[in-house]
This record gives sequence, C-alpha cells and structure tokens, in this order.
Amino acid sequence: MALVVQKYGGSSVSDAESIKRVAKRIAQTKRAGHDVVVVVSAMGDTTDELIDLAQQVTPLPPQREMDILLTAGERISMSLLAMAINSLGVKAKSFTGQQAGVITDAVHGKARIVDVVPHRIRETIERGQVAIVAGFQGVTQSTNDVTTLGRGGSDTTAVALAAGLDADVCEIYTDVDGIFTADPRIVPSARKIDRITYEEMLEMAASGAKVLALRCVEYGRRYGVPIHVRSSFSGKEGTFVSADAYSASRPADAAPRSADLPEETVMEDPIISGVAHDRSEAKITVVGVPDVPGTAARIFEVVAGSGVNIDMIVQNVSAARTGLTDISFSLPEGDGPAAMSALSALQGEIGFDSLQFDDQIGKLSLVGAGMKSHPGVSAKLFGALRDAGINIEMISTSEIRISVVTREDSLDDAVRAVHTAFELDAADGEAVVYAGTGR
Amino acid sequence: MALVVQKYGGSSVSDAESIKRVAKRIAQTKRAGHDVVVVVSAMGDTTDELIDLAQQVTPLPPQREMDILLTAGERISMSLLAMAINSLGVKAKSFTGQQAGVITDAVHGKARIVDVVPHRIRETIERGQVAIVAGFQGVTQSTNDVTTLGRGGSDTTAVALAAGLDADVCEIYTDVDGIFTADPRIVPSARKIDRITYEEMLEMAASGAKVLALRCVEYGRRYGVPIHVRSSFSGKEGTFVSADAYSASRPADAAPRSADLPEETVMEDPIISGVAHDRSEAKITVVGVPDVPGTAARIFEVVAGSGVNIDMIVQNVSAARTGLTDISFSLPEGDGPAAMSALSALQGEIGFDSLQFDDQIGKLSLVGAGMKSHPGVSAKLFGALRDAGINIEMISTSEIRISVVTREDSLDDAVRAVHTAFELDAADGEAVVYAGTGR
Repeated sequence: MALVVQKYGGSSVSDAESIKRVAKRIAQTKRAGHDVVVVVSAMGDTTDELIDLAQQVTPLPPQREMDILLTAGERISMSLLAMAINSLGVKAKSFTGQQAGVITDAVHGKARIVDVVPHRIRETIERGQVAIVAGFQGVTQSTNDVTTLGRGGSDTTAVALAAGLDADVCEIYTDVDGIFTADPRIVPSARKIDRITYEEMLEMAASGAKVLALRCVEYGRRYGVPIHVRSSFSGKEGTFVSADAYSASRPADAAPRSADLPEETVMEDPIISGVAHDRSEAKITVVGVPDVPGTAARIFEVVAGSGVNIDMIVQNVSAARTGLTDISFSLPEGDGPAAMSALSALQGEIGFDSLQFDDQIGKLSLVGAGMKSHPGVSAKLFGALRDAGINIEMISTSEIRISVVTREDSLDDAVRAVHTAFELDAADGEAVVYAGTGR
Repeated sequence: MALVVQKYGGSSVSDAESIKRVAKRIAQTKRAGHDVVVVVSAMGDTTDELIDLAQQVTPLPPQREMDILLTAGERISMSLLAMAINSLGVKAKSFTGQQAGVITDAVHGKARIVDVVPHRIRETIERGQVAIVAGFQGVTQSTNDVTTLGRGGSDTTAVALAAGLDADVCEIYTDVDGIFTADPRIVPSARKIDRITYEEMLEMAASGAKVLALRCVEYGRRYGVPIHVRSSFSGKEGTFVSADAYSASRPADAAPRSADLPEETVMEDPIISGVAHDRSEAKITVVGVPDVPGTAARIFEVVAGSGVNIDMIVQNVSAARTGLTDISFSLPEGDGPAAMSALSALQGEIGFDSLQFDDQIGKLSLVGAGMKSHPGVSAKLFGALRDAGINIEMISTSEIRISVVTREDSLDDAVRAVHTAFELDAADGEAVVYAGTGR
C-alpha cells in the first residue's frame, strides 16, 4: 500500500467521457489498496475560453481578478471528477487550492508556492477517501486572496502536495507515453526514456522538452519526490524521474523491471538521455561594440535590469584593425521588445553601431549524465551536424548538456542527425506511441 | 452619500457586452458619490450548463460537489464584472461568498445564511473601492466548505449583505421595471407598483409573483432593509419594498415623489397591491373519509411527515346519509408523489375510498393591506369571478390576502377579471414596460 499523488492535465479531462475514464483509473488505484490524492487541471480549453472572455471585457484585466476568473476552471473539473468517482462507489471529495493548504506568495498570475499545509487532504485520506485537489492555484497567507501559479502550475501543485504528504510517487498523467529521446513528431524513431535523473530532466525541460514543466522538476528534486510521467490513455509505465535513474521509485504495483541496463554499461558509457529542441528563442546582436573592459558587463546589466533572462552569449574576437567587436545573445522571443528598447537607450552611453534582432533561430540540446567526462561527446555532436551540412551559430554547455543554436529551418534536420549519431533511434519494430503534445 | 447594495441577476450579465453595461451603471453610482457593494449571479445560462455537465457525469451527484461546481459560475461573472469596472477607471475587487463573510449552515444545495461578517467588504468600501460579491454562495463555519443557497439565493445574499453593512438601500436589478399589479403577460394593462410593504410583498411572492424571492423579502423584513426592485435596462425607478409603503427609503439621488397618494385615501380605502397567480400547485382529494374526530388530523400529520407543505384545505360537509366526507388540499405539484404514497399507506388505517390527484388547478391571490377590515373585498372578488363565469374550488385568506383555486385553463381570465374589478388597470396611454420574466 502506497500513497500516490496523480495529476491529470486538461486534455485528460476534456469532457464528461474523459472525466469518467480518469475516474475509473483513480478508482482502480484506490481499490488496489493505495491511498490516492488527485490534482486536476481545468477541462480542455476552459482556461483559454476564460481568457478570451476577459479579453472581451477589457484588454488589461487586473491580475487579481484574472486569477479569480481562471480558478473557476479547476473548480468545475475537480467537482465533476469527484462526482464521477463517487458514482463508481469510491468516496471522493474535492478541494480548492486554499482548502488543500497550498500557500503562495502574492504575485498574481505566477505565484510561487511558499508552503503546503494539507491537513484536510490528510484527514480525507485517513478516512479512506480520495482527495481531488484543484491544480494551478493557491491562496496568499496574508490576504486570503486566490492566486494562480502560472505555466506548469498543476504539475507543480502535484509535486508540492506529494512532498507535503510524503507520498511514495507523484504520477503526472499526460497524453503521451512519457519523456522521449526526442520529439517523435520530428524523429519518428524516438524512444521512450524509462528512467532519468532530476538533473537530466531539468536540462531537458529547460532546453525545450515540453512534457514536464521545469519548476515541477525543480520542486521534485529539492524535496526528493519521485515523479512518474505516463499516459492517461494507456496503462503502460512511462518515464520515472528521480535522484538516481537506476533506482527510481516505482509504485508497489509496477511491473518487474525487465529493461534495466547491465551494470557495466551504466558505469562506463556516457549516458545520453535525449535530444531536446526549442524554437521559442531569438537572438540579439549588438554590432560594433567598442572592445573596452566593462562594456559587455554593462550591456548584460541593462538587459537583466529590463527583466529579460539571457540564455546563451557569444562575443566575437575583436577585429584588431577597428577595436570593435559584436556581442550576440539568445533570449526568449517574447522578451525581445523589452531587451531591444533597453539596449537602444544604451547606445549613446556605449556607442555601438547597431542592434540586430533575429527570431529565426533554433536551439538543439543534447542531454545526458556523465557527458562532461567524455570529451568525445561534443566532437561527435559537432561532427554529426557538419556531416548534415548544418552551421552552428552559438554553443553553450553544462555538466550534462551541450546546446547549439542553428537556423530555425534546419533545426529538425539537426535533431534527426544528432539522434541517429548517438544511437538513440528505436530498433526496427519497436513500438512507439505518441498521441500528441497537448499540455 | 449613501451605501447602496446592488444585485444583478444572470440575465443582466449574460455576455461581455451586458457586463460592460452593468459596469457603467455601477461606475455612475460610485461617481455620484455613493459607496457601492454589488452582488452578482452567474452569467446567463451558466448554472444550467454546469448542471447539465454534472448530469453527463452522474445522475446523482453528491450535493457538496454540486455546490463547488455551481459556485464556479459566480466566480466567472464576479471577476469579469470587477475587470469591467476597473477598466472604467473605478477601482473594484471581487470576493467569493467566503471572502465576503457569508456564513451558512451545512445544508448543501439550499443552505441558509446564519451570519454575515463582511470585514473585507467594509475595508474595500473604506478604501473607496467597489466590492463585487458572488451571490448564491457561502461557506460553513465548521468545515470551511462551500455551500449554495438554492432558489433566490443571490437576492438573499444581497439583502443579507445590506443588513450586515447597514446599507441605505438594497437595489435588486432585474429585467422588468419592478413589481406589477399582475403579470403583464396576462394583464397587458397591469401597472407597476411604486411602493409596497414587506408583508404585502411576502404574500405576493408566496402567491406566485416571481420577481422577488420569498426568502429575500423575509430577510429584508426581519432586518428592516429597504429593497428597491428595478430594471437594469432602464434608468427608471422601480418598486420600493419597505416596512411602511408610504415612507419607503429611497436613495439620496431619487427623483422627488410626485405620485404619493393623498393621506385621506390611504387611511380609508382598502389598499389592493395586486393580483398574483400560481400554476405550480396541485390538488389531492381523499374521497370517502369516515367523518370521525381525529381523522383529518391524522391525514395531515402523515402528509406533513412526508415533508410536504400543504397550502389550502377544504373539507366537504359530511353527507349525513353515509357518514363519509371528502377532504381536499393543495400542495406544490412536485410534492405530489410523496404525498400520494404517504396517503396510500394510510388507507388501511383510516379506511377512505380513494385518492385523486389533480394538477390542472390554478391559484389567484388578491393582496393588499387593510383588506381584512373591508369585508366588501371578498364579496367584490367572488362577484367578479362569478360574472366572468369562473368556478371557485377552494378559498383561503390571511390578513392581507384572499386566494382562490380555479381550473388552470380559466386562471388567466380570472386574473384579468379581478384586476379590472379592483380598478388596477393602467389608464389609457400609461406606458408599461415589461421585458420578460427571466429569473
């Protein structure tokens, strides 16, 4: 008997039929002898419809009211799900973020969880009932106002509750079979990853893999919550995310592990988890910057001051003849206008020539533990891209990741070439199920 | 400067456009120097749509979950309305029933308000902001669970808040111009009533007038809250409901009273407020009851024990030859099955012949203060019905009401005949605006 937190996204509860299907799965888990706490998102497109309604009323809604509006979505899905479970003869009760004790800061629209005090959830479990909790929302401690957690909010609610309840596993149900070695829409031979560490998953998520939100993985890592990403459509095991990829926690009823790698392989080979990609970045180039100490620092100080997160940076070698250099950096596309206007204001002070904005870039990231100690990895990566005729514009690395920026229109080719070069392709006949992306 | 509580029903906030229209009216009231607290229902058909969703999931949803589901409706309308008001440059904040301090008992689906502790609403007013409160909902003190108030819930929320805040007036906005002397769909010459007492309004509401919910009037009467029923479509004054119809409170910006009746008329004539009607009742007749003391008492004891509210009762004179009598009573149509089965079970004990159920009845009620001291009123009523060829099946009276039961298909004729006989018809050319019934 385990305590299992299950999270179902909007696409898993898009209508009455899917809600009943999810209810059956929850009832099964409960009847198998486990304690179950469920975190649920708003049904299908509800959140988008509510945002649309707000836009019809005013282009700039106050964020506090927006939060109240949006939390109506989870209210609907959580009560319907509780009804559906009850109708199967299993007692279930639904709770808002507030009732579940999800305390956040007061930053409406993207609040951060500061504490989880799940007294009522614990009570409900102790009575042998299933607790359904609204994802994506919390309440401020000071003002008792409703907040929303922003992107990836429901996943984060689930992991935070799992941590607060000391659950055995947090199951994130989605419409794909798990985390893949690459996006199967680009690489049809991509394989499902059975086990992955928090660190690798963080790099994958930060590099554009969209199945699991970055902050949810961060939370899971900090509190050591084993996360199991799996499909709500199939009964199959998905991807286990934990501190040690080879001893990831699994629910008591999981099938025996048949796919574990032999110990020897684990210890020696650089382990490549997968290839992530990201089309959502842009590149700004500051052209003709005087190559004087402190100039680059000043540029990034100003950009950071405008609230923009810089990703990768490249500074060209200074042309000795002119004493000028070019500085390029990548950033989220949406932050482009803010960064450009902050930099424009700096032109007089620094005296650069011009600014270039380029949103036609793509980023490919190869993620895997132990990569750093295997210098051959980057050589293999660059070689694979060269053989595919793809130019590299920027490079950055971490302990377990190498990222390169390419032209956006050659990104898919790049992902396929690297995926093949690192022998990640599924063997012929190996079945891959991938139902879509829907978050 | 007054403190005004305004309540807007679902038809007044059915889409983004109507929400903006209502926001303008609220902003106007605020700019005219008044403090404004707004109670709002769910948008248009939202509640019905949510009920439909629940039905798709399960035919018998737990009432606790149903309440959580339904309260999503007001959450949406209240936040959108707050946004719309803010966009007009007037600060507004929305509050759930819980945040507004609406404490109820734990009877989910038809909770009763046990206390109103509107700290946050008061704070909001003191900051010069408009407070928007979700109607129809509250929270239990013991378990912190969300409850709904059932039929007429938003009206009741508004009056309860007005009482808790000691407001100068509670304005109930609806899609008609006020309370009419009869339903204008039946009597086109019906007139809007300018002022009416709580007692008369209670009798009107209990007798089928649907504009104002009975429990809201009861609450208003108990706490002496002046209620102003008016149209959200026109700027006109509607109907004032208060303790004394001739000194009803009015907001500070109301037009001077031109229509007050001369004092003499007030003191001497029986004042007839209007003619209400009700098609929602049925009649049960217990045929061939032994005319023995205690039998009738036993019958009504059993019916009451089945949770049925009996309205009117008629016992025929016993036929001396047989020693048997018939007992008829009226009741809400929906309570018919419960009453019939309770009575069937009694047949062996009492030994009556048979039971008859008749849902083809209509009830007409003439309501007016001082009626009792004018015996001519009932004579005039019965005369008008006789002249119109309408048969009376049952009669009941109170201090300020006479009700008669007729065949359902002659009810409209009866209402028109009585309305004319008591000179309630509007003079030729007197404009009557009646936009519909929508509750």
